[in-house]
Amino acid sequence: MATAFARNQWYVAAYGSEVSRTFLARTILGEPIVFYRTAGDARVVALADRCVHRRYPLSESSLDGDNVVCGYHGFTYDTSGTCVFVPGQQRIPRTARVASYPVAEVDSFVWVWIGEAELADESLIPRAPHMAAPEFVTVSGMEPIDCDYGLLVDNLLDLSHETYLHAGFIGTPEVARTPITTEADEQAGIVRVARHMMDAECPPFYAKSTGIGGRITRLQDIEYFAPCLYLLHSRISPVGEQAPVFRTEITYAITPSAPGKVYDFWAVSRDFATGDAEVTEFLRDFNHQVVMQDVVALNILQKALDTEPEGYQELSIGIDAGGLAARRILADLAAR
Amino acid sequence: MATAFARNQWYVAAYGSEVSRTFLARTILGEPIVFYRTAGDARVVALADRCVHRRYPLSESSLDGDNVVCGYHGFTYDTSGTCVFVPGQQRIPRTARVASYPVAEVDSFVWVWIGEAELADESLIPRAPHMAAPEFVTVSGMEPIDCDYGLLVDNLLDLSHETYLHAGFIGTPEVARTPITTEADEQAGIVRVARHMMDAECPPFYAKSTGIGGRITRLQDIEYFAPCLYLLHSRISPVGEQAPVFRTEITYAITPSAPGKVYDFWAVSRDFATGDAEVTEFLRDFNHQVVMQDVVALNILQKALDTEPEGYQELSIGIDAGGLAARRILADLAAR
Amino acid sequence: MATAFARNQWYVAAYGSEVSRTFLARTILGEPIVFYRTAGDARVVALADRCVHRRYPLSESSLDGDNVVCGYHGFTYDTSGTCVFVPGQQRIPRTARVASYPVAEVDSFVWVWIGEAELADESLIPRAPHMAAPEFVTVSGMEPIDCDYGLLVDNLLDLSHETYLHAGFIGTPEVARTPITTEADEQAGIVRVARHMMDAECPPFYAKSTGIGGRITRLQDIEYFAPCLYLLHSRISPVGEQAPVFRTEITYAITPSAPGKVYDFWAVSRDFATGDAEVTEFLRDFNHQVVMQDVVALNILQKALDTEPEGYQELSIGIDAGGLAARRILADLAAR
Repeated sequence: MATAFARNQWYVAAYGSEVSRTFLARTILGEPIVFYRTAGDARVVALADRCVHRRYPLSESSLDGDNVVCGYHGFTYDTSGTCVFVPGQQRIPRTARVASYPVAEVDSFVWVWIGEAELADESLIPRAPHMAAPEFVTVSGMEPIDCDYGLLVDNLLDLSHETYLHAGFIGTPEVARTPITTEADEQAGIVRVARHMMDAECPPFYAKSTGIGGRITRLQDIEYFAPCLYLLHSRISPVGEQAPVFRTEITYAITPSAPGKVYDFWAVSRDFATGDAEVTEFLRDFNHQVVMQDVVALNILQKALDTEPEGYQELSIGIDAGGLAARRILADLAAR
Repeated sequence: MATAFARNQWYVAAYGSEVSRTFLARTILGEPIVFYRTAGDARVVALADRCVHRRYPLSESSLDGDNVVCGYHGFTYDTSGTCVFVPGQQRIPRTARVASYPVAEVDSFVWVWIGEAELADESLIPRAPHMAAPEFVTVSGMEPIDCDYGLLVDNLLDLSHETYLHAGFIGTPEVARTPITTEADEQAGIVRVARHMMDAECPPFYAKSTGIGGRITRLQDIEYFAPCLYLLHSRISPVGEQAPVFRTEITYAITPSAPGKVYDFWAVSRDFATGDAEVTEFLRDFNHQVVMQDVVALNILQKALDTEPEGYQELSIGIDAGGLAARRILADLAAR
Repeated sequence: MATAFARNQWYVAAYGSEVSRTFLARTILGEPIVFYRTAGDARVVALADRCVHRRYPLSESSLDGDNVVCGYHGFTYDTSGTCVFVPGQQRIPRTARVASYPVAEVDSFVWVWIGEAELADESLIPRAPHMAAPEFVTVSGMEPIDCDYGLLVDNLLDLSHETYLHAGFIGTPEVARTPITTEADEQAGIVRVARHMMDAECPPFYAKSTGIGGRITRLQDIEYFAPCLYLLHSRISPVGEQAPVFRTEITYAITPSAPGKVYDFWAVSRDFATGDAEVTEFLRDFNHQVVMQDVVALNILQKALDTEPEGYQELSIGIDAGGLAARRILADLAAR
């Protein structure tokens, strides 16, 4: 029942701020990759994280300038993955190279291309411009989850769970109660889910960050660019007034690490109270708690599925329209 | 070499005192089940511990009156397992229900029927009336063991191990030395093993609880009602005297949880010194130590078996007559 | 890709000092074995570590004189593995015996023969006489590693890794840079690798133990007696002088425990400063740190290999000549 991996796609591997002159090891779609920056132009390098000699992880190695020196026997690679030194002899075998991966830094993320390098087209990277835009302030983090990445896609495309799993944080009765509209562009690989609550309770997340006291108009517009990028455009305003509207952009990158393992990148960007450090810290802490509720639940859910007999049946209803569309798109991308 | 599970049988799932308005999750014969009591008549409810929607464990949920509200998306079930609410829509799918299990509270245990519900006949439940009888005082507990449940059946049906594994507690040389008589009613699924020691050392377990100083007549009469209930009727009296006779009823319920996992329910009931709290505490603590000796040994034994090559050979002797009869009965029950 | 086990061979099971009147349990080539000494002549006994009755580990038992009394039901075995007592009956079944293993104490090691006992010829045991010779002082230890034993053989036969993994301990640039000569006697199962550095930096290991301040002549002569014994004859002297020469004999015994598990016995013997307790403690501590660098690296490497897709490719170069010869010999020994 594991969701298949879609190759020949861009995936978020890290925040740009995570990649430095110290190695960062991440496994993406089952491929171990080591990331670092060059000394001069601070370009991100992504190499296969296995020495060609005895398969030792290069992330356990050291840098000599921009070259990677394997920590076991000293095989040395340049930024293209070409071996430039081996111990005990002058001749370097022609086949001594490790794969290098196309990377691009876009909207504060480091994206990596998994698949055939010659197909890597940066214009295919879906955008989250608020992540780096000056009029927004963003808090963010990343949590690894021990679950099929499809469970996280399900989770994010069906926000009715906010009412139950995130009660007291971002959920109120109206979220589960309000019908959704779903739009899937299966050709483009995009799913849109809208839930517009015209008169709803204001959950603590928004009450404390916006200062709104009473009931609100709450618009949730999801855009999921399969397989990796998820945007939740959130608009909050006091009921009955024309203004102000508080914009919050909630961004997730869903990066499959290995079967049963996923990286859950999360960010909250706002265009209000941008100079208020207290609001920033509140949103960082509060949203981290919300994310951890999902992490705990998805770890539990995966364990439950792992111990079930084969062939159990799910039951899907209206709220699942977005998630089911996403599954079809992912299956199609994986099959290509 | 795992002992097969026998379905269409009653199993002890819990002590009655363990089931309350807080969910109790137990896995019986590989089936995850959630137990709770209703608010009004305190009846025990047992439902399949998986929401029909996305398989989230209902034991991670909350109660609304007597209804279970799934902690993920709010699917709500009544005590029969019928879904009475789903989020985002009025219509509840006809197939939205989880299995409910027949349960019965008998002799302080909560019994659950695993198999076809229409075959659940409470008159088939074997009895341990001393567990709830006023003339007895009982101490009890439960230990999960990481072993095939057949190893626990073997352990309890061959008490010669008391001399070695439980020396200084309940074992003396006479237990291993005294021949047994075994009687198997394979039709009824009952095994009886008797070991009557007419002149034996008194082990600390009985010396401290009865106050007997010298040698004893010690009668051990086992009744095993396959697959779950085991009774050891123990009678102790000073050698040569007619009276008094100290009766101790030792009860085990052996409930397979999953392959390689078993719940070991244990209880010691006595009809003497019933008002003496010190004796009660001594027996609780001392018997817990004895049970833990078995737990440790069976965990070790299972690990040893797990790492052995296929097809190893056991060697059975006279003391194993009861255990071998039990194995035949269990194989027969599982095959039906 | 696991390295096959070679049966009908002698393996180091323990240091003689580890075997006493308390049971020592070791698993060699997947066979669980219990070791102890007799009371009278302190002879080492090695028996299969599983009771013939219900497979309980005999290492969890007790000694009655020189007999092993099973801790579960009291089956009792003499030093030949013959059962001499069973509970509850006089007659002892003819087949009640556990295997006993040929053992030999040679050069401070306890060697055990795995395979057909009638082929066990002590003259086949390779020698490491410095381990017990009076003119040497030896420090030693044993570390279990969670890796294929072939990875440890690879590690020890290619010392170029000293420069990278053990920099600041025993590695200097010259080790990786100096070509080696390799000699494999595949018939006798011996691999010899020589690396002679005529003018090299003196690493802390030797600087602190010998007191040499400047550059050194450093001779490394490896002899590997497949499958188990590895000797590194190390000779150090100040460059340009005729004398003195400092002899260090570095001994490893590589004993496969189970698939993916190996015992790494290590020892350092020296014939200089033999009365200097500070040098002894320095070498014990320092070499233990070096061994732990290998342990950590090999645990990492095995995990990396375990998560790789099938059929990955290694790339071998000149430094691997010794390791590749060893692999051929091990494959040949396993196939016989």
